[in-house]
Amino acid sequence: MIKPQTLKGFRDFLPETAIKRQFVIGKIKEVFERFGFDPLETPALEYAETLLGKYGNEADKLLYLFEDNGGRKVGMRYDQTVPLSRVITQYPELPKPFKRYQIQPVWRAENTQKGRYREFLQCDIDTVGTDSPVADAEVIACTLTTLKELGFMKPQVWINDRRIFDELGLSKKEIIILDKLDKIGKGAVIAELRNIGTKDPEGLWDLIEGSTPTKRLATIIASLEKQGFIQKADFVFTPFLARGLEYYTSTIFEAKIIETTSLLSVAGGGRYDKLIGSFSGRDEPAVGIAFGFDRIMEIMEENNLLPEMKTATQALVTIFSPEQYTNSLEIATKLRIGRINTEVYPEEETKLDKQLKYADRKGIPYVIIQGPEEIKNGVVKLKTMQTKEQKELTVDQVVEKLIKTS
Amino acid sequence: MIKPQTLKGFRDFLPETAIKRQFVIGKIKEVFERFGFDPLETPALEYAETLLGKYGNEADKLLYLFEDNGGRKVGMRYDQTVPLSRVITQYPELPKPFKRYQIQPVWRAENTQKGRYREFLQCDIDTVGTDSPVADAEVIACTLTTLKELGFMKPQVWINDRRIFDELGLSKKEIIILDKLDKIGKGAVIAELRNIGTKDPEGLWDLIEGSTPTKRLATIIASLEKQGFIQKADFVFTPFLARGLEYYTSTIFEAKIIETTSLLSVAGGGRYDKLIGSFSGRDEPAVGIAFGFDRIMEIMEENNLLPEMKTATQALVTIFSPEQYTNSLEIATKLRIGRINTEVYPEEETKLDKQLKYADRKGIPYVIIQGPEEIKNGVVKLKTMQTKEQKELTVDQVVEKLIKTS
Repeated sequence: MIKPQTLKGFRDFLPETAIKRQFVIGKIKEVFERFGFDPLETPALEYAETLLGKYGNEADKLLYLFEDNGGRKVGMRYDQTVPLSRVITQYPELPKPFKRYQIQPVWRAENTQKGRYREFLQCDIDTVGTDSPVADAEVIACTLTTLKELGFMKPQVWINDRRIFDELGLSKKEIIILDKLDKIGKGAVIAELRNIGTKDPEGLWDLIEGSTPTKRLATIIASLEKQGFIQKADFVFTPFLARGLEYYTSTIFEAKIIETTSLLSVAGGGRYDKLIGSFSGRDEPAVGIAFGFDRIMEIMEENNLLPEMKTATQALVTIFSPEQYTNSLEIATKLRIGRINTEVYPEEETKLDKQLKYADRKGIPYVIIQGPEEIKNGVVKLKTMQTKEQKELTVDQVVEKLIKTS
Repeated sequence: MIKPQTLKGFRDFLPETAIKRQFVIGKIKEVFERFGFDPLETPALEYAETLLGKYGNEADKLLYLFEDNGGRKVGMRYDQTVPLSRVITQYPELPKPFKRYQIQPVWRAENTQKGRYREFLQCDIDTVGTDSPVADAEVIACTLTTLKELGFMKPQVWINDRRIFDELGLSKKEIIILDKLDKIGKGAVIAELRNIGTKDPEGLWDLIEGSTPTKRLATIIASLEKQGFIQKADFVFTPFLARGLEYYTSTIFEAKIIETTSLLSVAGGGRYDKLIGSFSGRDEPAVGIAFGFDRIMEIMEENNLLPEMKTATQALVTIFSPEQYTNSLEIATKLRIGRINTEVYPEEETKLDKQLKYADRKGIPYVIIQGPEEIKNGVVKLKTMQTKEQKELTVDQVVEKLIKTS
């Protein structure tokens, strides 16, 4: 006998949760496609050399690496940007600009803690093959629209341009410290900057604070306004925004959800014009964003933005008696022809009470009962589980009613 | 510079293919839910001991096993039945009968050959917690309906009951030889049986051929007929059907597609009343089927059952000149509010010709053009790429037209 257990940081999604996740994924895909992004899927395993050295030294330690049965060094998908970069190089025939979305699980051997998992879903959009600022604006517009359609009242995208840091002569180390601002606050950032030898951290702070949008940012802002998004409300130029990842070259952005008093980050991205070159030897401009799906699910749950349904099944057809089994099958068949999601209770000898309890526990909204009396009259009883209300209807009428409520 | 390549047996699904796959998955999910199955998802990695010893010795060698960073022995999902069995044991609170579908990739270190991959999608339905033959019939009915809705004209399910072999006293070895009948033919089966010491293989053959359906099979057949399925056409009792997997205990079935002269197997399953007991120590009856998604995709492709579309994008909004960029953004925004999947060409300086070529290569069906003349008249040109036909319409009229064609 084996202890049934999941690995730490890995999760089963039981039907009630899986249904909610599919609902959210469906909405996200719909908006991604509305902005002209097409789906792409890449394998769970890649050659280790494809993945190593792309995410920084710390991240390399979090890769799931192993030797396969053929002695090849392989690794599990860690993000979707590096596989995209490989794809772009491997299939030069793909029309450019290449706009794709990708919604697949990724694996990271992180320390597990609240809301952090070792297997989690990423939802990415990227546009490759153009350095037009309008491509950046499209990614931001798509992000805002996605979050609004998921039901969030006040999503906001923070925008910055790494070139502002380049122009001020900031080192990589200094950028990494700036990236911690949200977590540690201004005082600690200035102290840390002084620690690593920044000459005049307060002066540098003032210089950053006084920066104005780069020409690229100005075009992005104008594009967003043309699409009906409002500066300071929907998006805001935030010169302190730094973003951790090494490969960003210019625009960076982060989407936030305003949750009572705190801001929660739900998506982050930017322009990375050099990453693809590490495969092809030839730079290819690219811009994109990754949504943190689990974080989004959590906030939607807390704000009651998820559908209430516990099952996709709309009706349970009960069995009155073993003799009437075939009647139940006939009713179910008619409902299914009408495209009603229907379950037939599969055991003939079970008491009606127990069948109703089963529908209740599973959260099936309607139950259909047909006893000898109903058979004689050519009708069924349709019971609405929430209100306990019962109605006598023909099967055709049931189909008509349930199509309307679905 | 790294050579961009996928591992042998692993595939990228570029947009054109990914769209077709999503279309088929959508249809399959729709029918699964119509028969009362709810989604379940399990992790890509399981404890190795969860997987080992479940599939037979040969299969164990095909598992992707490794040690994770914490020194745990883990393995990648090999099928969806064993994870389901773990789930059933781990969450005893799940209402029974528990009906779930699962559509996730699995990984097997197979020898690669035509149509056989190391990463492939499985589509499973299973009902756990009842040994009613009607549950078996529901799985078969759902299988037939799924294949019919995918567009296959003559799907057929072969049905048998392992207990027929038990009653005839067949050994495991003899069953494994019978399972090869499709591939090697009657003569070779009888020769192999004689080889391993079966006393009277011809006599045994006649006994099997003369078997009649068990009581369970008779009930299944009656249930299917009540749901409108036809014996000999939609399903057929096939006493030689053996199925390779060890864990089947009674009903077994296999779905075939009749393709010109040959029969192609696209799904297989059966009843496995003892497998879950290997986790829980307590037997739990279960029945299910797994669809071979790649085989189905291949046959659909060959029979032109897949949609023609190369992209989910319906319209490309072109840019006439850099000055008119913002007009294009406004048009795109209106289309998107109307839920039309829309791409704006992201570069201002590109010649219209090149933009049209881009739409053509990507397979975008409609292109929208607005020059100074059209702006003056408050209209756009809508170009249908296939017919080259152009119409002058208002943006609202474009939305209306494209909603209808989508």
